Amino acid sequence: MQLTRFTDLGLRVLMYLARVERADPVTNQEIADQFQVPHNHVIKVVNKLGKLGWVSTQRGRNGGLRLGVAPQALRIGKVLRELEGQAPLVNCHEPPCVLRAGCLAKSALDAGLAAFYAKMDEYTLADVSAQRTGAQLLTLHRKFVSARG
Amino acid sequence: MQLTRFTDLGLRVLMYLARVERADPVTNQEIADQFQVPHNHVIKVVNKLGKLGWVSTQRGRNGGLRLGVAPQALRIGKVLRELEGQAPLVNCHEPPCVLRAGCLAKSALDAGLAAFYAKMDEYTLADVSAQRTGAQLLTLHRKFVSARG
Repeated sequence: MQLTRFTDLGLRVLMYLARVERADPVTNQEIADQFQVPHNHVIKVVNKLGKLGWVSTQRGRNGGLRLGVAPQALRIGKVLRELEGQAPLVNCHEPPCVLRAGCLAKSALDAGLAAFYAKMDEYTLADVSAQRTGAQLLTLHRKFVSARG
Repeated sequence: MQLTRFTDLGLRVLMYLARVERADPVTNQEIADQFQVPHNHVIKVVNKLGKLGWVSTQRGRNGGLRLGVAPQALRIGKVLRELEGQAPLVNCHEPPCVLRAGCLAKSALDAGLAAFYAKMDEYTLADVSAQRTGAQLLTLHRKFVSARG
């Protein structure tokens, strides 16, 4: 049981933008370099985050990615729910499971998933981008900016 | 976010064995046919369930798979934990994430996973093999036995 790489990267993008200085614009390439993921993967994730209203892209010389929401207002459960896309924990349809009509295991798993999201909703983007995690993000960004010259 | 196919099948095997009549032995082939999965996949899963002491295999003419534990004593959280193998929800190591030392997102996700398992521990194998799910399991088994002649 693992979050998709799409969700994982989406969360990291949000954390990165939540913490870095607003003065230095962040590009897709910076995200790709920092997390060692393909550039087109970042583009897809940022596109989705844009549609959700959580990230905006500004064009031009000082353009880049900006957070479109206050980090303390964005709950992590909501982030994960949107990025995972309400997929159930088991695939009852490929191949079609003989128990899928009214399966009690499926209902129990749905309840488990709801408990997971409820717990994740106790955390905001600000919470998970704070303290030493936040300090690390800031150091990473500053190194990138200074290497870029 | 999805359970592995290994875990999914493991849960189904346990449910099947929890509900079918003890008089008719269940074979790996019956499980493979009912859930439309490869026979060698069933063997691997049953082997793991055997190591956990939850399923025993009896040889001979009336041999087959038997549940090695009382369904009301086996908690689903425990089943999932054992079959999933304590894998975290995100892969911080491939590629190595720059935030992995003391990441607050990772800690939050671990708490979410613990909440999921705690919720799943509210259900026993008997719970998820009861009612209409149990009736379906029984019907499936009887059809299989009668088709076999």
